Amino acid sequence: MKQWLKNSIMTQRGVGAQRKPVTHHLTEEMQQEFHYTIGPYSTPVLTIVPGDRVIVDTRDAFEGAIQSERDIPSQLLKMPFLNPQNGPIMVKGAEKGDVLAVYIESMLPRGDDPHGICAMIPHFGGLTGTDLTAMLNDPLPEKVRLIKLDSEKVYWSKRHTLPYKPHIGTLSVSPEIDSINSLTPDNHGGNMDVPDIGPGSITYLPVRSPGGRLFIGDAHACQGDGEICGTAVEYPSVTTIRVDLIKNWSISWPRMENDTSIMSIGSARPLEDATRIAYRDLIYWLVEDFGFEQWDAYMLLSQCGKVRLGNMVDPKYTVGAMLDKTLLAH
Amino acid sequence: MKQWLKNSIMTQRGVGAQRKPVTHHLTEEMQQEFHYTIGPYSTPVLTIVPGDRVIVDTRDAFEGAIQSERDIPSQLLKMPFLNPQNGPIMVKGAEKGDVLAVYIESMLPRGDDPHGICAMIPHFGGLTGTDLTAMLNDPLPEKVRLIKLDSEKVYWSKRHTLPYKPHIGTLSVSPEIDSINSLTPDNHGGNMDVPDIGPGSITYLPVRSPGGRLFIGDAHACQGDGEICGTAVEYPSVTTIRVDLIKNWSISWPRMENDTSIMSIGSARPLEDATRIAYRDLIYWLVEDFGFEQWDAYMLLSQCGKVRLGNMVDPKYTVGAMLDKTLLAH
Amino acid sequence: MKQWLKNSIMTQRGVGAQRKPVTHHLTEEMQQEFHYTIGPYSTPVLTIVPGDRVIVDTRDAFEGAIQSERDIPSQLLKMPFLNPQNGPIMVKGAEKGDVLAVYIESMLPRGDDPHGICAMIPHFGGLTGTDLTAMLNDPLPEKVRLIKLDSEKVYWSKRHTLPYKPHIGTLSVSPEIDSINSLTPDNHGGNMDVPDIGPGSITYLPVRSPGGRLFIGDAHACQGDGEICGTAVEYPSVTTIRVDLIKNWSISWPRMENDTSIMSIGSARPLEDATRIAYRDLIYWLVEDFGFEQWDAYMLLSQCGKVRLGNMVDPKYTVGAMLDKTLLAH
Amino acid sequence: MKQWLKNSIMTQRGVGAQRKPVTHHLTEEMQQEFHYTIGPYSTPVLTIVPGDRVIVDTRDAFEGAIQSERDIPSQLLKMPFLNPQNGPIMVKGAEKGDVLAVYIESMLPRGDDPHGICAMIPHFGGLTGTDLTAMLNDPLPEKVRLIKLDSEKVYWSKRHTLPYKPHIGTLSVSPEIDSINSLTPDNHGGNMDVPDIGPGSITYLPVRSPGGRLFIGDAHACQGDGEICGTAVEYPSVTTIRVDLIKNWSISWPRMENDTSIMSIGSARPLEDATRIAYRDLIYWLVEDFGFEQWDAYMLLSQCGKVRLGNMVDPKYTVGAMLDKTLLAH
Repeated sequence: MKQWLKNSIMTQRGVGAQRKPVTHHLTEEMQQEFHYTIGPYSTPVLTIVPGDRVIVDTRDAFEGAIQSERDIPSQLLKMPFLNPQNGPIMVKGAEKGDVLAVYIESMLPRGDDPHGICAMIPHFGGLTGTDLTAMLNDPLPEKVRLIKLDSEKVYWSKRHTLPYKPHIGTLSVSPEIDSINSLTPDNHGGNMDVPDIGPGSITYLPVRSPGGRLFIGDAHACQGDGEICGTAVEYPSVTTIRVDLIKNWSISWPRMENDTSIMSIGSARPLEDATRIAYRDLIYWLVEDFGFEQWDAYMLLSQCGKVRLGNMVDPKYTVGAMLDKTLLAH
Repeated sequence: MKQWLKNSIMTQRGVGAQRKPVTHHLTEEMQQEFHYTIGPYSTPVLTIVPGDRVIVDTRDAFEGAIQSERDIPSQLLKMPFLNPQNGPIMVKGAEKGDVLAVYIESMLPRGDDPHGICAMIPHFGGLTGTDLTAMLNDPLPEKVRLIKLDSEKVYWSKRHTLPYKPHIGTLSVSPEIDSINSLTPDNHGGNMDVPDIGPGSITYLPVRSPGGRLFIGDAHACQGDGEICGTAVEYPSVTTIRVDLIKNWSISWPRMENDTSIMSIGSARPLEDATRIAYRDLIYWLVEDFGFEQWDAYMLLSQCGKVRLGNMVDPKYTVGAMLDKTLLAH
Repeated sequence: MKQWLKNSIMTQRGVGAQRKPVTHHLTEEMQQEFHYTIGPYSTPVLTIVPGDRVIVDTRDAFEGAIQSERDIPSQLLKMPFLNPQNGPIMVKGAEKGDVLAVYIESMLPRGDDPHGICAMIPHFGGLTGTDLTAMLNDPLPEKVRLIKLDSEKVYWSKRHTLPYKPHIGTLSVSPEIDSINSLTPDNHGGNMDVPDIGPGSITYLPVRSPGGRLFIGDAHACQGDGEICGTAVEYPSVTTIRVDLIKNWSISWPRMENDTSIMSIGSARPLEDATRIAYRDLIYWLVEDFGFEQWDAYMLLSQCGKVRLGNMVDPKYTVGAMLDKTLLAH
Repeated sequence: MKQWLKNSIMTQRGVGAQRKPVTHHLTEEMQQEFHYTIGPYSTPVLTIVPGDRVIVDTRDAFEGAIQSERDIPSQLLKMPFLNPQNGPIMVKGAEKGDVLAVYIESMLPRGDDPHGICAMIPHFGGLTGTDLTAMLNDPLPEKVRLIKLDSEKVYWSKRHTLPYKPHIGTLSVSPEIDSINSLTPDNHGGNMDVPDIGPGSITYLPVRSPGGRLFIGDAHACQGDGEICGTAVEYPSVTTIRVDLIKNWSISWPRMENDTSIMSIGSARPLEDATRIAYRDLIYWLVEDFGFEQWDAYMLLSQCGKVRLGNMVDPKYTVGAMLDKTLLAH
């Protein structure tokens, strides 16, 4: 185990950190029905013990409906049945007031001829009128890009090859009583589209219902800040996670930790509200767990805080506020 | 029946308009459990036929937890168990793609010594930092006002008596797959807090699940535009509604009709997005049902459209865009 | 003089309220160059004594460039030379920390064959992408409406005749050091487009430079809430105002008073910020001048405050928060 | 000259790129009066030829008014006389429709005992109510930090030493007719607070008035994304720039280029509008100067665009949208 992972909150405080993990494989067959809403009302597909590993076969965000560059998204996609989620996975012992820690070990393309899809969908995206930013303008043209990829590269076009930098777009626990469509991020996680939530990251999610009810899906082979056209390189993946349980850690919004940084994540509109949530939560975290005085944390972040724009296209926008781990040392 | 009601869309197109209505009484006993989330997963308490009348005994938004000016809201209120809703009421024959029409006949104070509650709740309201507009400032002071009222007046203070102008703060059909807490307005209705949705108004709600699943609650004895401190005069009511079903009227957002005006209602953040939704939907309505050319409707509303701010304190803000009915005539 | 006007702050506190007013006529010839920026750097066209009356010949917002429904706005209008303003008018004795009071006595159409213009201008308006809400969509079509009007009616179309309800769209004092284009409203007044600022209203503006430097223009024969297509019925007017000076009344944002209401006016983006400014200023006003306790004012406005959306199309949006004058009495 | 600088747009298209630069020194004595508003009405302090070098002695954003941690900002700072700017510097031959290119060669601390100031100012910052996001909450406490620094380190506290990463917070050309206070960023540049605008960067600014009228000030020894507490490490600097003129390059918003990236910069509220402006302008730039097809640029940025939050505390918020230069190659 890498040193940072040994020192992580997950390893330090997870109840299953010392267990030898059992590995589960959540196949499409086991999953049967994928979910389009994150809540307490669906039937669990798997129950695990804290510390276990789960290999998850995720579908792409279009659930495979788009297969060719001649396909027309508006004819094939049917709201709200988008962004299919695996789960819910129940974690034994998880109760309201706890935290689920999700460490992503690896993400690999799934299938023989791996490829992803990027699409421009009418009235969806960051630079177009939408259902919520209602305009009278005609929609942008519909476009589909079918992109070959492997575990090193994303072959975008003849001119442009991009590095394969996978991440999980949608990662959630269940809200307490709400059931929220998988397109929307909020304080339960959801469709955050934060590129840092990839292999080598730990995401902390606030448990609000028995078992936590973990949902996962929406793998992206790469994604820019904001996911500005509305979609990333959406692809089916084999994603391997380890899940642990931290008792009695009361957090309000998702948090993330990797080798170099800690991050608080807010989702809201307008974007300044998402940023405020993220920065305030990061200050609270620095005070509670790292010995900072509140106003010193506020003023220090003003000098070296970093901001990641996750998505600016979902029903709520997502922002991560980060601090370099070197600044956590005493 | 008043002339405008005879001419209303509800009467003209409702499948139950010619029926002699059966009157139901949805008492607290029948309701048993009130609901804090609006969705397809709860058990119906009543099934009615289009055109029926329902007398609903609503609880106040605090569910009676606040009874004295010495009560401390932050100790007595427990998120997300706020804003209790009656329902769901199933309407026979209602299917996705239809509209429920809800005519409010009357709203009366309930109880022997009728009164309402207005409260300032920490980190809630329009002129304070909140969970979503996250600030580091200390909260505003907590305040509770217990206000006597009757069916004519709201006795606010020695200095100020206000007219009793009741309305329903939260009126909803179920989303298709989501279940949304009763504090949030959206395109299913929800916690809109539009003062015009009172006696003598018809609200049209887009059916998205079998039976429509009508929820109702959150009576206000009066309310200003924006509900700026976060609460209105919240009181338990006896609210009498008639509910009809309009087949094959596909609407995207709630609409309202009364003696003098038609209104489209949008809920979103920021507030300009709520306003855009409302005005665009009103244009679509003028084109579809009243013979307007789209650009003429846009330009005419620029001269005589009216805007009502519902709430500016909920997780989403609500705006109604209105046109005077005299301008609908040919 | 009407009773409310006798009791108004303008009459009660204006230094020129008891003077017999001198009447000035600010003709196009006197004005010579109209202004497109509101600031301390332009040459005064007139100096008056507090209490004086000025008859102002205003030009329409397009400065007469659009004369026919076949005109193409994008070819004829040239940013930032839009919304021509009369002034600056210097008021003797006005200093930083004072207030100018502007009572509008009357507004009449100017010219032999009076008409107004409404236009849809590319990338401008409330339901289209704009320079600031940048989209990639094609612009809406350009449209021009030439509308006959007189001092009673606005003859919009064969189907629709609207009442003549004139108001001044742009009314300003100079900022202290900035010079702000006449399209933008802010705390100096500017392009507020509040329909209540018509005949029978008094607007209070915070003086920030010697003489106050009053600018006025942008008459509208009528306008809906939000001015949603981007323009009202824009017309040349003869507008008669009386201007008085209130010493040592330190206000931060424009305020308004008429027969029935008082109003505070905020301009900002997003729209909730404009509304917050307006409501907070109204609370401050109630506390300072009308004997309210702050939290009582906040909670009372939550029951009976009214909101007017001025414009939702300018570089900043404008909102008025109002209270009925009957509620000011002790 | 470094290779990237040789290949930069500045060097390739600047009319003075081949000239041997004359070096000017804009001392405090030459500057005399610093400016708090950016516009066409102030008197030039220096005229240069395209390609010239200017050494600028900048004052800190508080103009030296805060000298000790016991100072109280609200007593010493006087709106709008904040953020003093050097300039205007006239560039020979610059006309509306051209671009000024400003290459920052170096930024050094000024004075014998160099230090910077970070302050928490009442009702100013990202996590507090402000003049524009008006709240009724009490302000946060006032705080002043006096921070020693040198050309390698910023000695924040006993616990934290930060790298010296200087940048210019406020860099502007004059608007055409407006004069905008130096606290506000907009399409003329202004108070953008983009940390990338430091040594080794070229900023491109759209000329709108004769000579361009370059203003510069507001040096930061380091700054986090968003400048969340409202201030960076504000210090007096010796900043050396080279300024060139690019004829007939019509740009709408500031752009930036350095060794590794190109960036478009938008300033607006809400923050999504700033981001939209930046991303749209970057797409336009890719199409115009780098041979991209528009929809390909939009979709590619969705995979690898980067976003920098400049400030989220000024009257408008600033965002840069970036692309890695390796992706510009054919």
